[in-house]
Amino acid sequence: MPIINVKMTHEDGGATKEQKEQLAQKLTQAFVEVFKRGEKTCVVTVDEISTDNYAIGGETITNIRKKS
Amino acid sequence: MPIINVKMTHEDGGATKEQKEQLAQKLTQAFVEVFKRGEKTCVVTVDEISTDNYAIGGETITNIRKKS
Amino acid sequence: MPIINVKMTHEDGGATKEQKEQLAQKLTQAFVEVFKRGEKTCVVTVDEISTDNYAIGGETITNIRKKS
Amino acid sequence: MPIINVKMTHEDGGATKEQKEQLAQKLTQAFVEVFKRGEKTCVVTVDEISTDNYAIGGETITNIRKKS
Amino acid sequence: MPIINVKMTHEDGGATKEQKEQLAQKLTQAFVEVFKRGEKTCVVTVDEISTDNYAIGGETITNIRKKS
Amino acid sequence: MPIINVKMTHEDGGATKEQKEQLAQKLTQAFVEVFKRGEKTCVVTVDEISTDNYAIGGETITNIRKKS
Repeated sequence: MPIINVKMTHEDGGATKEQKEQLAQKLTQAFVEVFKRGEKTCVVTVDEISTDNYAIGGETITNIRKKS
Repeated sequence: MPIINVKMTHEDGGATKEQKEQLAQKLTQAFVEVFKRGEKTCVVTVDEISTDNYAIGGETITNIRKKS
Repeated sequence: MPIINVKMTHEDGGATKEQKEQLAQKLTQAFVEVFKRGEKTCVVTVDEISTDNYAIGGETITNIRKKS
Repeated sequence: MPIINVKMTHEDGGATKEQKEQLAQKLTQAFVEVFKRGEKTCVVTVDEISTDNYAIGGETITNIRKKS
Repeated sequence: MPIINVKMTHEDGGATKEQKEQLAQKLTQAFVEVFKRGEKTCVVTVDEISTDNYAIGGETITNIRKKS
Repeated sequence: MPIINVKMTHEDGGATKEQKEQLAQKLTQAFVEVFKRGEKTCVVTVDEISTDNYAIGGETITNIRKKS
């Protein structure tokens, strides 16, 4: 029973319900393909966080986006 | 100083303030009963996540609920 | 299907197998008592970490233990 | 830059290096297919934990395995 | 590429955008000073959680604040 | 009581005890400088993980290191 957590920034209105359904499906498949188990029990959770709350190299994604 | 994190789906309006108080108390007690320490220092955090953001077996809880 | 994670320091040889069994049982019970669900599906994971890798107030548990 | 964390039990000698390489690749692909981004920046981390430290329904995987 | 996560309570209107920018900068610097790497790749994420969802010694921060 | 978690790869024999002491101190200071609280209560935990268990862009750090 693997637990897969995805932490991603909330961009352009956020991930849609359909995208999250697809993501859960595809991540689960990926795990099953490699380990031949977890098909029914694999858990996927998604955390969407503000671009103000995510930084790389000491700079928030909000600010990185402004420059690019 | 154990740190106990609970990740749960946000259902039926979400956990109430009272439920979260009880949960913190009972989880702390559970830890203390087993390890005889942590009574004052045990930390409990609760993450409530949307049923769209939680999937089992590649299917979101939102969709699982619809079928049942 | 709540996911309960316990992060605790590895002390005095570490938690025994029996303690971890009890902990899983008691934490699950605590959740079920409050929310009336999760009896069969509640997941408990335990992370034991070195006292060198856990600090409070800027000081590692290893060093705090030495002083007390 | 999504961060994908996989928490899985350490079974049968643990995941091999090759399995972890494949897993990282496939999970990254899955994310990219859905969101059309993250190809170079997606981070995948894997936590393997003892079957003594993972429980479902209040029972450790170690004990569940014994019964089956 | 260290990943630094900060879990903090949402107090007094929450951390401002400026505070989160500073925090990301300073935590990244701290890591770089110690390990001489990670300057461009260090990731910082911040989770702000309700004082109802954070407890110490079995009591929520909300209730602790009321008493003090 | 902020909780700061650092997830880093285990490189060149791993972080020393002294580095982890310094890291805990500096991260705590960084938090206190920004928020003017947490001096005594800030928790820092460090997870060191194998370069086989950490990937970027679908490739493990182990393999990235080999190429560079």
